[in-house]
Parts: sequence; structure tokens; C-alpha cells
Amino acid sequence: MRYELYYWPGIQGRGEFVRLALEEAGADYVDVARGKSGIGKMMHLLEANTLTHPPFAPPFLKAGPLIIAQTTNILLFLGDHLGLAPKSQAGRLWTHQLQLTIADIVAEAHDTHHPVASSLYYEDQKEEAGRAAKAFRDQRIPKFLGYFETVLKRSRGPYFNGRVLSYADLSLFQVVEGLRYSFPRAMKRAEAKLPHVVALRDRVSARPRIAAYLASKRRLPFNEEGIFRHYPELDS
Amino acid sequence: MRYELYYWPGIQGRGEFVRLALEEAGADYVDVARGKSGIGKMMHLLEANTLTHPPFAPPFLKAGPLIIAQTTNILLFLGDHLGLAPKSQAGRLWTHQLQLTIADIVAEAHDTHHPVASSLYYEDQKEEAGRAAKAFRDQRIPKFLGYFETVLKRSRGPYFNGRVLSYADLSLFQVVEGLRYSFPRAMKRAEAKLPHVVALRDRVSARPRIAAYLASKRRLPFNEEGIFRHYPELDS
Repeated sequence: MRYELYYWPGIQGRGEFVRLALEEAGADYVDVARGKSGIGKMMHLLEANTLTHPPFAPPFLKAGPLIIAQTTNILLFLGDHLGLAPKSQAGRLWTHQLQLTIADIVAEAHDTHHPVASSLYYEDQKEEAGRAAKAFRDQRIPKFLGYFETVLKRSRGPYFNGRVLSYADLSLFQVVEGLRYSFPRAMKRAEAKLPHVVALRDRVSARPRIAAYLASKRRLPFNEEGIFRHYPELDS
Repeated sequence: MRYELYYWPGIQGRGEFVRLALEEAGADYVDVARGKSGIGKMMHLLEANTLTHPPFAPPFLKAGPLIIAQTTNILLFLGDHLGLAPKSQAGRLWTHQLQLTIADIVAEAHDTHHPVASSLYYEDQKEEAGRAAKAFRDQRIPKFLGYFETVLKRSRGPYFNGRVLSYADLSLFQVVEGLRYSFPRAMKRAEAKLPHVVALRDRVSARPRIAAYLASKRRLPFNEEGIFRHYPELDS
């Protein structure tokens, strides 16, 4: 089956967590909104008044007759279909639980530059962003990544489920990349205490399909339109 | 099986979404942290260094040998086990997708009173909260609840999956209750355009087990320690 991914074409954003899963599995997929008239096609589907299961927002995935939205829900589906999650009930739930916790830190990373409202410009909430980013750097990065460090230590690594890769490992790689881009100074300090997290990041980046993807034009660069933004004043 | 729910004892919070599912199903459960030495028992489990699948935070559910955290993940599990979700793959994913969107509005409702950092007092971010609450009232409540209204219209109601109740319906009831408590004036305006959402809320509240629960002491009142808080200055 050829999967159709729909997501904003200029950013990694939440779509990137889905792209990494599709790429690692070597899945046949098209990144619709990056093609010709792509945004129009995405908006057409998003606003279609004939869908009984409409997405609230991108990303969403078309898989045959199914249209699935919400990043963690898409990964729950792809985990089963692409062999990127354990088959046992306990393992599936645990992997999904980790993904939901990853989604929480991603949302908080976004909110450092938009603490008041997503609808306002960064420049209109810059002072508040400074305060939010300080709390995120000092408290939240160590708390979230410290948790993942503990979990990886207990799994005996290199991955969350031990020796078998899952979509949650790909997503933690992306979180580390995004945080390094946004907060290079804070991450340098934090990583000294996160050997297992860094080792996972390195293992994921060296997987042949991921390495090929990262070197390709399909991998968009980080930028100041996405979730992970580098504003030097938020990393001081 | 007797389920064990672990959540902060003084608030509805995220635990309430789980309580409503357990109550509707007439499940045998104990709300551990509300019992004797309950918080100690919760912290003991949360900090146990023997768990290979530790929760990041409450709520979490003990179901036999499984410990499941993250509200939407707990509901994914209970949906299957308590008959509160469709059995088809499409129906299960759709119900979970709705729950994840509900989780998004719940997080944004929380952030209206804590836009800068959860670790700071409301009083230390009151001005920012005023700006965040305005955007939430004017843009986000209509957008989220308008989406659920559209979905319910297309399902032909009264519930998200038509005539069959799911955990997502119970959660939308809770969101309406919480928003009415937090933003009574804004909700009065919004509800004029949300007949299907209000009808779902009424249907859920009239279900015998839910009505009995709401009238019992097991239902904690809303308060200014929880997610949905009433600060009149944020509703003007």
C-alpha cells in the first residue's frame, strides 16, 4: 500500500515523527503537501464536509480507506503495520505511553516560544518566552530526558524495548536533534548526565535507512517556523 | 479484576477522565491515593527503582501485572477491556484520535492559568494568564468545540460513534463541565452554536451510573488546584 502523508511542507514539525517511521521501514509513501498543488490537496481533505472522521489538524495519514490523525495515533497504527512496535499488549501500551510522554515534551518545547498564544507572533510574547524557556531549560529538559535516561538504563538499551527498535526510539532521536538545535548550550550541559539517551540518538542516526534519509533532500532543515526554533536569547 | 487508580487525591484533574470510564462501566476499582496512606503508596510506586515500565506522572492504572500511564493510553486500554470503544480498527483509532484532541484542549485549558511555567504560582504569571485566556476564549474554545460539534452532526449523534457510547463521549462531557466551571460567561456565548455538544453532555450526565457517581462523594468538586480553575478575571 502507498501511504499518503499530509503535513505542512516547509517544516519538520509533528510530521517528522511520522516521516521517520515511514523512512525506517522503507515504506512506500508520498508526502502530499510537498508535491504539486500539495497544500491545496491537503486543505481540500481537511475541509471536506463529506468525511465522517475528519482530522482536527495536520499531520494526517491516508492508508487505503482510513484517514488517521494525531501524531501518536498515526504511530500507534504504523507501529503495528510496519513492525515498529512490540506485538504483546504490554509492549504496545508501553511504547505508546513513551510516545505520549515524548509528545508532552514536544508541546512544551513549542510553548517556550509561544507561551501566551499560538496565534500571536513570537515578537509579541518575547518577554514571556524568555521566562518560559528558562523554566523549560532548568527544570523540564532535565526532568523529561532524565526520565528517558532511567527507562533506557532499565531496558539495558540501546532502545526503549531493549534490542528491538520501535517508533518511540525514532521519536526520541528527533527530540534530541530538535533540542540540540533550539537549546545548544542547555543541551550541552544536560547531556553530560544522559549517556543512554545520547547513545540511542547515535544508534538511530546510524541506521542505514535513517542515515540515507537524513542525507537526502527529503529531510527538511530545522527553521524558525517549526516546533524546535533557535532563538539564541532563549538559550542563555 | 480490581483496578487500582493512582492520582492526586484533591483534584479531578486528568484522573477524572479515567474515573468516568471506570464508573460508567461499573468496574471494580480503588482510588488508591484517596485511601489511608494513599499518597505514600502512590509515591512509592512512582519512585520504585524496580519497575521496568515506570510512569512519568500520575494518573496511572494498575491492572493485574500491568502498570499503565498517560490518560489517553489508560483509556485506550480500558476502552477495549470495559467495552467503551468500538471493536473495529477504524472505530478504535477514531475514538482514540478524538481522545487525543480532547487531551489537547485540556492541556490548553490548563495553560491559560499557567502560561509561563507550571512550577510558578498563578500570581506570578497573572498578566500573561489574562492574555492567554483571552486567546483561549475567543479562538480556541470555538475552534475545538466547533470541531466536536461538526463531528457529532456527522455521526448523527447522540455520541461520537452514533448510538454507541465510548470513553471519548465521557471525556467530552468532562470538558464541557470543566469549561463551564472555568469560563461560565465565555461558555454561555459559545454554547449557542453547539447544540450537539450540549446534547451529548446532557445525555452522558443522565446515564444512571454517571448520575449516581456525580451525586456521590466520589466525585470531587472543581477547585483552584486542578486543571479547570475559575478565576473570574480570566473570563471577562
